[in-house]
Amino acid sequence: MSPFTGSAARTSDWRHLRYEVADGVATVTLARPEKLNALTFGAYADLRDLLAELSRERSVRALVLAGEGRGFCSGGDVDEIIGATLSMDTAQLLDFNRMTGQVVRAVRECPFPVIAAVHGVAAGAGAVLALAADFRVADPSARFAFLFTRVGLSGGDMGAAYLLPRVVGLGHATRLLMLGDPVRAPEAERIGLISELTEEGHADEAARALAHRLAAGPALAHAQTKALLTAELDMPLAASVELDASAQALLMNGEDYAEFHAAFTEKRAPKWRGR
Amino acid sequence: MSPFTGSAARTSDWRHLRYEVADGVATVTLARPEKLNALTFGAYADLRDLLAELSRERSVRALVLAGEGRGFCSGGDVDEIIGATLSMDTAQLLDFNRMTGQVVRAVRECPFPVIAAVHGVAAGAGAVLALAADFRVADPSARFAFLFTRVGLSGGDMGAAYLLPRVVGLGHATRLLMLGDPVRAPEAERIGLISELTEEGHADEAARALAHRLAAGPALAHAQTKALLTAELDMPLAASVELDASAQALLMNGEDYAEFHAAFTEKRAPKWRGR
Amino acid sequence: MSPFTGSAARTSDWRHLRYEVADGVATVTLARPEKLNALTFGAYADLRDLLAELSRERSVRALVLAGEGRGFCSGGDVDEIIGATLSMDTAQLLDFNRMTGQVVRAVRECPFPVIAAVHGVAAGAGAVLALAADFRVADPSARFAFLFTRVGLSGGDMGAAYLLPRVVGLGHATRLLMLGDPVRAPEAERIGLISELTEEGHADEAARALAHRLAAGPALAHAQTKALLTAELDMPLAASVELDASAQALLMNGEDYAEFHAAFTEKRAPKWRGR
Repeated sequence: MSPFTGSAARTSDWRHLRYEVADGVATVTLARPEKLNALTFGAYADLRDLLAELSRERSVRALVLAGEGRGFCSGGDVDEIIGATLSMDTAQLLDFNRMTGQVVRAVRECPFPVIAAVHGVAAGAGAVLALAADFRVADPSARFAFLFTRVGLSGGDMGAAYLLPRVVGLGHATRLLMLGDPVRAPEAERIGLISELTEEGHADEAARALAHRLAAGPALAHAQTKALLTAELDMPLAASVELDASAQALLMNGEDYAEFHAAFTEKRAPKWRGR
Repeated sequence: MSPFTGSAARTSDWRHLRYEVADGVATVTLARPEKLNALTFGAYADLRDLLAELSRERSVRALVLAGEGRGFCSGGDVDEIIGATLSMDTAQLLDFNRMTGQVVRAVRECPFPVIAAVHGVAAGAGAVLALAADFRVADPSARFAFLFTRVGLSGGDMGAAYLLPRVVGLGHATRLLMLGDPVRAPEAERIGLISELTEEGHADEAARALAHRLAAGPALAHAQTKALLTAELDMPLAASVELDASAQALLMNGEDYAEFHAAFTEKRAPKWRGR
Repeated sequence: MSPFTGSAARTSDWRHLRYEVADGVATVTLARPEKLNALTFGAYADLRDLLAELSRERSVRALVLAGEGRGFCSGGDVDEIIGATLSMDTAQLLDFNRMTGQVVRAVRECPFPVIAAVHGVAAGAGAVLALAADFRVADPSARFAFLFTRVGLSGGDMGAAYLLPRVVGLGHATRLLMLGDPVRAPEAERIGLISELTEEGHADEAARALAHRLAAGPALAHAQTKALLTAELDMPLAASVELDASAQALLMNGEDYAEFHAAFTEKRAPKWRGR
């Protein structure tokens, strides 16, 4: 738990998603299975606020983002979001689109790895949520579709035009964002969109196992690795090398680095403290 | 047609390439088959000027770039370009090299998708033209060769050292630009240089089909997607997310987004207007 | 040999690595085979200083970086580096980490291609050295492990969080840097981490052959290609195109470009001068 929390209370009840935490592993489940976990305004807001709270608290060392039922997430709800935005004014539209982008920034910037557990459809905003995660653990039923142009919108939604070329290269990213065609698991794995391909029906279990492995490890080192990967996409080489030097010097003063050396010398496994 | 055209007349006759347009799809054909469509000064200038005119007019919704005869384009003509540049002074050399770069910028920045239809050789400047396109539709005879070092020049020609690492990754890009070795279709597909691999002899037809599909779709959404993909390669995450929010809010005021919702509600296909 | 050398003497004896040069090809061999070529403070410093000297002198046209014995390089020595850093103060830690980063910058910025010849293990700093090289020529025994988190440190070491996403994409890079799992040759080739996969036991020989091919070629064109690839990762498109235009205009005044044209006209192989 970070000492740097102020007056803001923790949210006790997340109404638009299911939230559990155990042993440093948080699990966020999109749980509207009858709607293929289509996102609502409330779900976006809860994702944004939950990630902000968890980032302040530092009690979580890894987070799994999963979907209940037949798929991961079908994207923004056609009635509750697309329909509603049609009667919004410019300020409201900007407010909504900024919120969805804030969710992606929160996923990229929170100080713990985020693991998307993907089975079935990950479409629209659901595909971007998975894309923003650090790991995409998926089973063979997974299919990603950045189908924004299919609804008359830009493929550059929630940072997708920034992230996708950096994950799969500009050629594949252009095709995926421009056409909105579904990408099935074999292709997604081939082009680098899937981090770990599991057996059918095992994405959630494998994502949980990975989260527990990460949570049991040197959490500060993981958090730093994530922060540098996120930052250095936007930095030149010389500055990146200087940032790495500072960050690494800092961690070399940390407990886990000394613990590694002690454990190695004593021929035993290290007991990571996460500091 | 854009209302923002001024006094400049449309060019009625493109003498250094073949230009056709129908149903919002432009086709530009490099047509010097006896020279494997080697580029001349005139061909570069026409490509630059044609793309600028089409960008102002907004009558074109997709463009196919193809080569007549045995291959796509063998690059700058050894006699008419390499020979000629040998007697140019510094200002002329800079002028020429800026022109070729302007063609690449025009391909990346024009407000419609560009589809390179590649069969046979795409070498030197021809390989970079294909690389700059949004889609590379190629048949198994396609081979790409960034052979600049083979003529004693830098592999970083016309933006290739910027674009290629972003399409195929820095490792492959270094190998391709430094050595100039040909990359045949199977490898090009494997590393992400080909967007769509067709059957032998079907690249032009498949490129046309893709262009017509794009032209029949939400053209403003496609243009915006392309603009964001181009811009966000050069922007940090936070700014990209903000740009996406503005762009998407704008499109949510557009006709095509409302049309999608109406069509979805009425269980019919949307009639895209491109606005 | 560059005319721009000053008072600084050439180092006559590199004590922490083996250095040979012949026909414009330098070979640097990490030669502590009993320790799997684990790096010492001296080895880092020698790599930094050697590359700086070679960059000033311009006598070398390609450099092979190889490892003697069972593997390429197991990374920083557990006793001589990890143990020693545990008793360093903050200034010393920063100094050490800056030095390692300077080695990576030197590899990326030296005006000749660097070819890592990888067999067996390339771990930790050894993996980053290989990653920084322009070419990774590897045999099937090669395995890369960015195992920094395994010792409680950040995966962003020596620029790895900058370089790896640009070589293999953000998804693979996150997995590799966060988990530190070994990547064996088939996967490394599939994701673009290996430039050339050789037969078992032939990495050194193939790396030498590539170095001699490069050294016999248009060395200035190669150096320029490398400089542009390095620079344009950190530049926007418009600036990259302008840089390419200047660099190419310069090379069009060079001897090798004229030689190519003469050789082509005379139907003979060009005799590259490297200027």
